[in-house]
Order: sequence, then structure tokens, then C-alpha cells
Amino acid sequence: MDIKGFRFSAVEAAIKKPGRKDLALILSEAPAAACAVFTVNAVKAAPVLLSMQHIKRGTAEAVIVNSGNANACTGDQGMIVARETVHLIAEGLGIPDEAVQISSTGVIGVPMPMKRIRDAIPSLIEGLSSGTLDDVAEAIMTTDTFPKMEAREARAHGVSYMVAGIAKGSGMIMPNMATMLSFIISDAAVEPAFLEKAFRKAVDVSFNSITVDGDMSTNDTCLIMANGMAGNPPIQEGTPEAETFEELLGDVLISLAKQIARDGEGATKFVEVRVSGARSDDDARLAARAIANSSLVKTAFYGQDANWGRIFAAVGYSGAEIDQTRLSLSFDDVCMAKNGVFAGGDAEKRGTEVLRKREFTVSVDLGLGNGAATIYTSDLSHGYVSINADYRT
Amino acid sequence: MDIKGFRFSAVEAAIKKPGRKDLALILSEAPAAACAVFTVNAVKAAPVLLSMQHIKRGTAEAVIVNSGNANACTGDQGMIVARETVHLIAEGLGIPDEAVQISSTGVIGVPMPMKRIRDAIPSLIEGLSSGTLDDVAEAIMTTDTFPKMEAREARAHGVSYMVAGIAKGSGMIMPNMATMLSFIISDAAVEPAFLEKAFRKAVDVSFNSITVDGDMSTNDTCLIMANGMAGNPPIQEGTPEAETFEELLGDVLISLAKQIARDGEGATKFVEVRVSGARSDDDARLAARAIANSSLVKTAFYGQDANWGRIFAAVGYSGAEIDQTRLSLSFDDVCMAKNGVFAGGDAEKRGTEVLRKREFTVSVDLGLGNGAATIYTSDLSHGYVSINADYRT
Repeated sequence: MDIKGFRFSAVEAAIKKPGRKDLALILSEAPAAACAVFTVNAVKAAPVLLSMQHIKRGTAEAVIVNSGNANACTGDQGMIVARETVHLIAEGLGIPDEAVQISSTGVIGVPMPMKRIRDAIPSLIEGLSSGTLDDVAEAIMTTDTFPKMEAREARAHGVSYMVAGIAKGSGMIMPNMATMLSFIISDAAVEPAFLEKAFRKAVDVSFNSITVDGDMSTNDTCLIMANGMAGNPPIQEGTPEAETFEELLGDVLISLAKQIARDGEGATKFVEVRVSGARSDDDARLAARAIANSSLVKTAFYGQDANWGRIFAAVGYSGAEIDQTRLSLSFDDVCMAKNGVFAGGDAEKRGTEVLRKREFTVSVDLGLGNGAATIYTSDLSHGYVSINADYRT
Repeated sequence: MDIKGFRFSAVEAAIKKPGRKDLALILSEAPAAACAVFTVNAVKAAPVLLSMQHIKRGTAEAVIVNSGNANACTGDQGMIVARETVHLIAEGLGIPDEAVQISSTGVIGVPMPMKRIRDAIPSLIEGLSSGTLDDVAEAIMTTDTFPKMEAREARAHGVSYMVAGIAKGSGMIMPNMATMLSFIISDAAVEPAFLEKAFRKAVDVSFNSITVDGDMSTNDTCLIMANGMAGNPPIQEGTPEAETFEELLGDVLISLAKQIARDGEGATKFVEVRVSGARSDDDARLAARAIANSSLVKTAFYGQDANWGRIFAAVGYSGAEIDQTRLSLSFDDVCMAKNGVFAGGDAEKRGTEVLRKREFTVSVDLGLGNGAATIYTSDLSHGYVSINADYRT
């Protein structure tokens, strides 16, 4: 993988337990067009507040990320630590403070061990000569069981460029993102206003379409940097090159989002929830989210129990307009219920077979219109409870 | 306990597994003033739809309830079964069909075994000569681990009367009620319009203030019948007698609601979530519900982990107006966080001690106004997952 003009580094700063990298740096050798989507939680971590200020300039040159501590609910001291971290990185790289984005993920409400970060920064910067994007993907993990990465290549005006991304997040994942960090980098030259538009659209159908437990964190950030070092003429909206770029970006983000849902805390199933026939796309989204967030539905998935009634119940309280006599439901291609009632025959047996699979699709047709939406989710298992009951111990 | 003019019966109709009563009947010897609150789920079970029609007359004489099958998502056939059941009861008791309320709870989407109900009705009616309210409380249980009952006595104009109630429901419990059935009976004479007003008020601060998993069922019903057979002059709004009655009713319903939360599926903790200092009571309720419904918060309770940061995160996405620098939080009387940051000292140790208790209170002060709300909930445990993964097996 060759993404021109980006360098990477990750080190152990002892924020997490020993033996795990927890501080990472991404550097773009030239100022990159940049934009970001942050958590809509009203409780925002210090690094989120600081990055929101910095991103206003529309460019970024570096991202500093730590795992193990969210630097959230840490008050003025949290902001002082975030500012100092950014300043040390900027100084070490010879760039302005405002060109640095900062993210944190981990436990909430615990003061950041600033001394450890301070001590680790020199070797972090030094590591830029040899680090890889893989190193960064690994260093940002918390309860993730595998690093999440995706990369695609395309050509614009005969010049080949890449879009690559990494992500972390397995619990607290929910529409509008949650304890999710994702960093997308590209060496393409992209006209900034179009970059932002394409990015927001891609976030919507990817990270905003996954849910693990319905919680939403204080730290979510999804950032894109496009540094233009591939040398293509800037991609402009409304051109065939723009279409290709949008497609590529969507592919990368959807792949990352699916990886997150697959790695949902304790997940044993990956479930695609498709709602169609709604009065509107918004209604479809409401219904799909209600299904994907229902603890009763998710435990039934875990138990491999073809309990379609719980899914109808979730649709019923979702707020979407429904007519219970028009609802139908399938697990993969097995129709479980039609016109609101059980489909009969061997549906129970065949539906249960579908639920035994590691991945399946739940399709609900509301029978009212053309609205549609897809949400990716996981089941709710004993593993989820164990992970989150013992997270800090 | 002597509630004048009510009779009870419960039998095994083989709807549930053998050895458990699953069909119950409450009879008032005189037409009782009655009103009910039903699920707001757009998917409503047949018995709910039928009872909604019948309750319009403002009186009721009997309630027939089964557990083991919800008769929900059962289409036209479900309504035929509900109507026949009501008719057989009415015929057996010599009262109009419309005087019968019907409720079902259990698995969704499975046809009701009408023959078994038909066969059991004669012995059910016969049992009215010797049954007790306890028998009914037991027969309506599904995943409940204990029957839920409460009774209080008071006097109106020198005449003593009673308010008693039973309830079931341990999963799918959520504001606006969910897989919750509750039947309240009183031998007091109560002016009907006041009865309805007092009842709705009591439901709001009790059943609408508990949450186990945030799900909402297709079958919830809370019904009150007051038959006047105590012989008191009807209780009128705005009198001291009305005040006493309201208080009594509130006590009975709050007691039942707490019993439900205590018996939350797999619950190992009973938690009272109090939010104060909100801009409005509605805001306080939003924040309290977000805390009580958060899987991350509930697993932390289960793990006895004083993870107050997750609680602030839940408040942050609740939709309530907040200022993160004004938030404070206590477990019982241990202040964990003030002005948005950790309280320091030995708070962690003392907070963890509180969370080791079977019951505790989480108090969050938003520091913005006078809005307040209380929600009762339980933790999210391995038991919850086991119960709901294997519910139908």
C-alpha cells in the first residue's frame, strides 16, 4: 500500500496495560484538506472540543491519538493536557498547533497521565521514519478484538491515488457514532467543499448506520485528510472523477463500519437489518434502529431463536408509521411472517437454521410506501455483559 | 385481606408448561367503575384491541387473563379467539360480553390453543368459590421469579375500604409500560371521572417510571376496577377523601412498580435513578431514562463498577439540556463527581462500596433548574441474556 506523503508511528506510553501500544501519530507531509464529524453527545471530551476548533481552518497536517483514557469529564485539567499534547507534537514536527487533530478513547473521568505522554512523544515522532498504518490501527484499539483497516485505489485523469482508513470501536456504537474513532487518509487532490460533502454522505451510510448497544460516546470522531500528493488535478464535484471518488470513499467507510459491527463487544452474530416499504426513509431508519437496538431482539439473535414477534414489537414502538396487518419479515430468504402473522409451514425450522449462521439479514417490509434503510448490528451476548461489567478492572 | 365483592380463580389450562397455572379470572359481584391504560405500541395484541373497545363503557365486571401466549401478531384468528374467550366467560357468569376485560402475556406470534382454554373455562368459573388474589398473581407470571401484590386500607366517611393490586412483568419493561400487566381492585365507591384522573396520575409515577430493558410490549395493560361494595359515599375530587384515595392508589402502584423493577430479568441490583436540577421535569425524565436504559451503565452496575463517566455520557446523549461543567453525581450519599469532574479523595472506593449493595440510588444534578424525575431500574446481567436468549426453548 502506497499512500503518498503520509507517515505513521505508534508507541507504548503506558496509558494502557503494559505490552500494548497506546499512542499513535499520523503525519501528512503537506497540509491536507481535512474535515471531520464529531460526537453529538452534549458531554464532549477535551480532545473533541479542541479538534473542533482546529478543524475550522479546513486543513490538517497531523493526528495524535491515544487509547486507554478518553480524557472526558476531566474538566479544565483535561483541556490543559490536550493543549499541551498538541503543542508538543506541533513543536516536534515544526507545524502550527492548529494543524494538529487530537483524539482519545478509553475510560471516562480519569485524569490523563500527562507525564507519560510527554515522555513518549520524542520516540513517537522518531518512529515516523518506519511506522505503518497498521501500527496506528492497532494502537487505537480498546475492547476491539482485531484492528480495522480498508484501502482502495482508483485513477483520476490518469493518475492513480488511494483512499485508506482505519477505525476502532466495538461497544458504545450507535447511529451518530459512538466511541468510534476513524481516520481516513487519501493522497488524492480533492476540492475541499466537495470533499466535505462526499465525506458526510459516506459517514451517513456507514458509521451512522451501525449500532451495537445504542450508547453514544463523548469522544467519537471521524476525520478525513486528503493531501493531494498523488499529483492529480483536484477532483471537482459533478465530474466522473468525483463519482469514482465518492464510490471509493463509501466503500472504505462501509467496510470499516461493518468491521466495527462484526467486532461488536461480545458479538457472535453480524446482522444486517433492512427495512423497506416505509412511508419515508426516515421512518425506515426509525424502525431499523429500533430493531437493531432492542435488547430482546439482540438476545434472541444470540440464542438463535427465530422470535420474529419481538422484531414486530420493536417496529411497533419505533415511532415509524405502521399497519400491523401489513408487516412482513424474512430471515435471509425465509419468510417468517406475512400480513402481520406467522407464515406457517416449516418457516420456524428454516428460520432457525438461518439464525444459526454467523451472518444473516433481517428484512422487514412495512407494506406502506417506498422508504428504505439498512442498519448493521450484532447480537447481545454473555460476552457483552462480561466485557462491560469488568471494563475497568 | 377483605376486598368486598371480588372473587378470584386460577387454573392450569396447559398453555404454559405443565404444573403452572396459566388462566385466571377476577369477578366483581357488581359492575365496577373501571378504566385502563394500554400499551402505546403500534403493534397491539388482539386482547388489547378488544379490551380497548370494552373499556369505553366505563365499567367492567370480570377480567380473564392468560399467561404463556400473548395472542399478539396472530391476525384475524387472534381476534376470533379473544372474542370467543370473552364470550364463554360472559356466558358462564351471566354478564354481557362488554363487561369482560381480557389480557394475555407470553410468546408473540403463536396461535392461542383455543381448545385448551375452552376446556378449562368451566373449572375456572367453578373455582371462583374458593380462589384468592394470590392465585391470580401467580397465574399471570411469565419470567417473573415472584408474584407481585400490594394492598392498603383506608377509611372514607367512616367506612373502611381497600385498594389492592397485582402485577406481572420482568423483561420488556419500560416507560409507557411493557409486557406488564397489572390489575387494581378496590371496594371503594369512587366517582368515575375522578377515578380515571387519579389512576392515570398514579400510573405515571409508578409503571411509567420503571425500565428494565427499554423494550415495550404489544400487550401492556393496567386496569382498575372500583365496585363500591364497601358502602362508602362515592369519593369526589377535591375532598380530603379523594386525597387519601390518591395517596393509597399511588402507594399500591409504586410498590408494584418497584417489585417489577426488583424482579427485572436477571436483575441483581435495584437502582433508583434520581435526576434533579434540570431545566424542566421533562428534561429530568429524559436524562433519567437515558441512564436507566443504557446497556453500558447497566452492565457497570452489574459489575459493581463505579463508572460514573458512563452515566454522564448517557446524560449527554439523552436530549436533555445540559452544561457538562455543572454536572454532579452521587451513589447514595457518596459524591462521585462535581462540576463535571471526578470528586477525588476516596470517592472511588466509597462509591464501589455503595454499588456492592443490592439496592442503591444514583443521583444526578444537572445544575440548571428545578426539574426533577425518578426512574426505577435494574442492572443488565448474564441472567438477562440467558433468560432472553432461551425464552422460547
